[in-house]
Amino acid sequence: MADPATVKTDARRHHDPQVRGFASDNYAGAHPEILAALALANGGHQVAYGEDDYTEHLQRVVHSHFGSGSEAFPVFNGTGANVLALQALTDRWGAVICAESAHINVDEGGAPERMGGLKLLTVPTPDGKLTPELIDRQAYGWDDEHRAMPQVVSITQNTELGTVYTPDEISAICDHAHGHGMKVHLDGARIANAAASLDVPMRTFTNTVGVDVLSFGGTKNGALFGEAVIVLNPDAVRAMKHLRKLSMQLASKMRFVSVQLEALLSRDLWLRNARHANAMAQRLAEGVRGVDGVEILHPVQANAVFARLPHAVSERLQKRFRFYFWDESAGDVRWMCAFDTQEEDVDAFVQALKEEMAK
Amino acid sequence: MADPATVKTDARRHHDPQVRGFASDNYAGAHPEILAALALANGGHQVAYGEDDYTEHLQRVVHSHFGSGSEAFPVFNGTGANVLALQALTDRWGAVICAESAHINVDEGGAPERMGGLKLLTVPTPDGKLTPELIDRQAYGWDDEHRAMPQVVSITQNTELGTVYTPDEISAICDHAHGHGMKVHLDGARIANAAASLDVPMRTFTNTVGVDVLSFGGTKNGALFGEAVIVLNPDAVRAMKHLRKLSMQLASKMRFVSVQLEALLSRDLWLRNARHANAMAQRLAEGVRGVDGVEILHPVQANAVFARLPHAVSERLQKRFRFYFWDESAGDVRWMCAFDTQEEDVDAFVQALKEEMAK
Amino acid sequence: MADPATVKTDARRHHDPQVRGFASDNYAGAHPEILAALALANGGHQVAYGEDDYTEHLQRVVHSHFGSGSEAFPVFNGTGANVLALQALTDRWGAVICAESAHINVDEGGAPERMGGLKLLTVPTPDGKLTPELIDRQAYGWDDEHRAMPQVVSITQNTELGTVYTPDEISAICDHAHGHGMKVHLDGARIANAAASLDVPMRTFTNTVGVDVLSFGGTKNGALFGEAVIVLNPDAVRAMKHLRKLSMQLASKMRFVSVQLEALLSRDLWLRNARHANAMAQRLAEGVRGVDGVEILHPVQANAVFARLPHAVSERLQKRFRFYFWDESAGDVRWMCAFDTQEEDVDAFVQALKEEMAK
Amino acid sequence: MADPATVKTDARRHHDPQVRGFASDNYAGAHPEILAALALANGGHQVAYGEDDYTEHLQRVVHSHFGSGSEAFPVFNGTGANVLALQALTDRWGAVICAESAHINVDEGGAPERMGGLKLLTVPTPDGKLTPELIDRQAYGWDDEHRAMPQVVSITQNTELGTVYTPDEISAICDHAHGHGMKVHLDGARIANAAASLDVPMRTFTNTVGVDVLSFGGTKNGALFGEAVIVLNPDAVRAMKHLRKLSMQLASKMRFVSVQLEALLSRDLWLRNARHANAMAQRLAEGVRGVDGVEILHPVQANAVFARLPHAVSERLQKRFRFYFWDESAGDVRWMCAFDTQEEDVDAFVQALKEEMAK
Repeated sequence: MADPATVKTDARRHHDPQVRGFASDNYAGAHPEILAALALANGGHQVAYGEDDYTEHLQRVVHSHFGSGSEAFPVFNGTGANVLALQALTDRWGAVICAESAHINVDEGGAPERMGGLKLLTVPTPDGKLTPELIDRQAYGWDDEHRAMPQVVSITQNTELGTVYTPDEISAICDHAHGHGMKVHLDGARIANAAASLDVPMRTFTNTVGVDVLSFGGTKNGALFGEAVIVLNPDAVRAMKHLRKLSMQLASKMRFVSVQLEALLSRDLWLRNARHANAMAQRLAEGVRGVDGVEILHPVQANAVFARLPHAVSERLQKRFRFYFWDESAGDVRWMCAFDTQEEDVDAFVQALKEEMAK
Repeated sequence: MADPATVKTDARRHHDPQVRGFASDNYAGAHPEILAALALANGGHQVAYGEDDYTEHLQRVVHSHFGSGSEAFPVFNGTGANVLALQALTDRWGAVICAESAHINVDEGGAPERMGGLKLLTVPTPDGKLTPELIDRQAYGWDDEHRAMPQVVSITQNTELGTVYTPDEISAICDHAHGHGMKVHLDGARIANAAASLDVPMRTFTNTVGVDVLSFGGTKNGALFGEAVIVLNPDAVRAMKHLRKLSMQLASKMRFVSVQLEALLSRDLWLRNARHANAMAQRLAEGVRGVDGVEILHPVQANAVFARLPHAVSERLQKRFRFYFWDESAGDVRWMCAFDTQEEDVDAFVQALKEEMAK
Repeated sequence: MADPATVKTDARRHHDPQVRGFASDNYAGAHPEILAALALANGGHQVAYGEDDYTEHLQRVVHSHFGSGSEAFPVFNGTGANVLALQALTDRWGAVICAESAHINVDEGGAPERMGGLKLLTVPTPDGKLTPELIDRQAYGWDDEHRAMPQVVSITQNTELGTVYTPDEISAICDHAHGHGMKVHLDGARIANAAASLDVPMRTFTNTVGVDVLSFGGTKNGALFGEAVIVLNPDAVRAMKHLRKLSMQLASKMRFVSVQLEALLSRDLWLRNARHANAMAQRLAEGVRGVDGVEILHPVQANAVFARLPHAVSERLQKRFRFYFWDESAGDVRWMCAFDTQEEDVDAFVQALKEEMAK
Repeated sequence: MADPATVKTDARRHHDPQVRGFASDNYAGAHPEILAALALANGGHQVAYGEDDYTEHLQRVVHSHFGSGSEAFPVFNGTGANVLALQALTDRWGAVICAESAHINVDEGGAPERMGGLKLLTVPTPDGKLTPELIDRQAYGWDDEHRAMPQVVSITQNTELGTVYTPDEISAICDHAHGHGMKVHLDGARIANAAASLDVPMRTFTNTVGVDVLSFGGTKNGALFGEAVIVLNPDAVRAMKHLRKLSMQLASKMRFVSVQLEALLSRDLWLRNARHANAMAQRLAEGVRGVDGVEILHPVQANAVFARLPHAVSERLQKRFRFYFWDESAGDVRWMCAFDTQEEDVDAFVQALKEEMAK
């Protein structure tokens, strides 16, 4: 096959590859090693829909992280991973207990309800983290047909608020859920950042402590696209391949999803990328912590910094760097770092923040 | 950004890039120009979820094919494109008239029904092609609440049986459907092959003749992955971006879907790839046409050859080249050519067929 | 409690209770014994949602028909019964094999697909009856995720075309389905008419021969409203009460559904009503059989007569008696008899038909 | 037709019609005038599925309450009414803002999500009542496809906590909702009790102030079964009859639903029943208000009394009269009065409560 670097394409570059901001870790592109992996997997014919050599090999890579009982089902995106995982863990009459701030509740356009027929039983949390006590606010009434039956607890690691569960905290949740006959799903859109933050293998806070099914996030970790539902407890699910297909998440040329996940997971790219993004968030938090009038809102444990500052300052700053308001009325903003965030980016941003605060 | 060709990746090659078969056009990998386009679009930050420069530019490319009123909504795969398009064209009480052999009916795991809540009203056809008369077998009862209301006619171009509608045939279908207040969806998973076969622009058999919404297939045409719902009649749909999100088809790093479609459509890669695949199918059909005991089943108008031959011969042949039975009990097989099928592949296959027939 | 017959109500009579036609068995009202049963069950407080004494007693009545392993779940209507039963028998990825003419396919507004997320795999039949051979046209591909997985065979007894399966025919279907790991559902909207026609207990062609779940029809049999999903094979289903609730079929004052079913089933009202309706259909068929230009289309085995006659004659006749065209283009009509059809009604109708044919 | 009072039925009486409790207004049976109305509507043939004379007449009765622009769609039960109404008011991408305590959120087994594909956006409230300010916690993000689009505000009148909105309060909600382009649904499972409490016609707090669609509750008001979706703003909905059918809520013998609603609404049975139940709740509240250790929790504005008392007392009391815990951990109970609650019932209950408190 031709070398991609020498191939001419009719597509053109429409953007400046030197511009980066703090809006989201999926504003970043793909890590160069990911593109190189795609080129490796290209050429020749491979069986479509998941019976290719790359998907087969991916299982071995996943086993090295999560044990030989685990199985990965590559899918397209995070919403797809979550809705597939939750359908697999529930009956038609099942409900899912989650934090009010969970991505599945607030950021998926109602896909869990509409596509999965799922009822979400939500609990307000101070920091995006469930606890056994918080779960108990919704964990009851299994025999009451008027109530959607709680069958799954879904947690996000790290959370949508940039906080990280300890392995013990997840262990307590799993024990509590299992004690009630419920399963545990972990939305790991940023699981790599959590592992880097805790400095433990991913299994330490997933299958080791009882998580049944995991949505593994590749996209925010440096892939072009691609996630996987990783089944940790095979007894908890059935017919995964059928559910993936009917959930419109079955890639025909699956080798190209699988090889990206292999590139991330076969050695340490997943960890390098996550550690770097986390370190950039720490640098950013350090940089702004002393600035008068800027308040850091949650513990900075992964690659996100949540802050409160004057609304007008944020608006001026947004003209220089892209980022989002999190709660506009309160003046809360979110600054995300990615695998490709550079120290200079952070320093320039902190400098700009100081300038705008001083105006 | 680093040059992908020089980047080391932890992923490894697990397959022989010289092996090709006749199983499916999505057994093929990606065209090298597609990988080159991905590299171009990489680097720096781009707004996620479709507000990037590549998706914006894609609109202009799509306009050049389908006119300035058209709009492309990139999605992940064909099932996603079809279910999104059909949801957009129907009310909650709507039904879709399609051929019994339509991909949406037989090959999507029930996704239209389960995810879209759609009722399919199917019609048997001799060759995968609907006609106004065939449509009329299901086009009635709009005021009858006991019947799912026919609101859309969905056709596939080219069809699942490798046949191609003429522009006049589609025009007659559109006129007929519109006359009944129904909309027309075209599943264009292989629309490029149809255009190449007819030797006309794609618009000639889509918006020019009244198709309302199109599923444009990039994957089988040489992309890594990626399709687009292309809205040709904006009055026929609403809230496309909301429907795409809730249908789990919204790519976060959408630039990488859009740039692939740009690479295909901005000049002629789509057509080169399709013409080549079609030519290979013609070569294959030519090669086997004279072979005693092998019957070509449908007109070979695109990149598929359907044939009937002794079952035992097929089984022996499958040990040398991958392909599928289409109707195993009848001894029917399908041989697909792809953008990367080589003349030598075809000739070797024909030779092998002759050898196995002679045994 | 006051005697209903002496109670004044603000409602008024708006119709002529002496007018009857041949349009449908649900054009009839309720049998007087049904109203008497409602009065009996009235007064005082009873636990809502099915824990009342009438629903409890109904189980014993149902056991007398279907054995002590059976359980009845009263619901509101036939569509609700069918969608509940089919959801109970399928996984999220399941499909249902049925005749193309099945009520679930053509007369339920897409409720099975939209509410149950079910895919129907239909087979054309000459007379509304499936056979193992016909089932095999759709019974394949259980491991193929591209195909909705066939998990249930649904038959209608008697069929929508007025034909009746013999116990042996249903036995063969059940054996065949079970041999493939599929379950069998019987839509018994008119099961009483079938039993009366066969002159056997209902169990003879249901649980005795392997039917797993039954939709028992009370409404067409003389009830005000009310059907029941009767589970014959408890191992085939789970969480029925949860499914009934979420399917919007849980009656709060369930005693009033249950007592109607008790009135029908506790002795022989169900059979008296069915036999009478069937006899009226026979009388009607006899009356028209000799009439030149009128063709009886299917064996008259229950309470329906399907006939073909000149369209203009039907139109004139419809001005004198209500009935429906079945296939208007072919001139096919359906004449239904009900529990309250009188011999004079039939004779007057036959006379009218002869008069109109003679014009 | 035979007089029901003289008709023998095979059903038997299984309960004591003199026993009444305080568990729920749907533990009560039907008002005798309802049974009398059913007898009136019986006999002869009437067109099924809603084209009968009773359903036609019901429209005129409904017009007398809600104006000539209103239209009633009889259905089976409250969950069905709510899910039908909300489907009619939303697009596939729509969401519904409601109180966390709303019946649609906590008591319908997930039917809105599973059957209607609806996302509920909930707000905690002190007393079950929404306000414009509370609505604003969820009323935002209409253009954001990541968020389910708020399209409807659903309120319950009277609320699940026995509180009643004033017409002005509903007017403010409607103005606020309409100002945001949202529609307003009113779950009127106990609307009669609210009207009786406010002593105003039902229109005063529904169409007069802007409610678009209403679920009218017949069952708790004394019907055997039967509710209606009443469309007050015809521009807000489409294809109601199709939606009702596919939602499994279309009664074949609809005359029997319609005549019950006629009996309630044609003069004042609805109001007599509601006033009586409300008066009994007032009597009960009066009786217990002075009892030491018993706290009335919400304003008693309709037919429910919520109270807090020692758990052990409630348990002993439940052996004498049926009622439910509302929040068992807090010791909160709900005492409901019905149209058939007698003064003696209330007095005996209050006496029993005092006895148990004294132990």
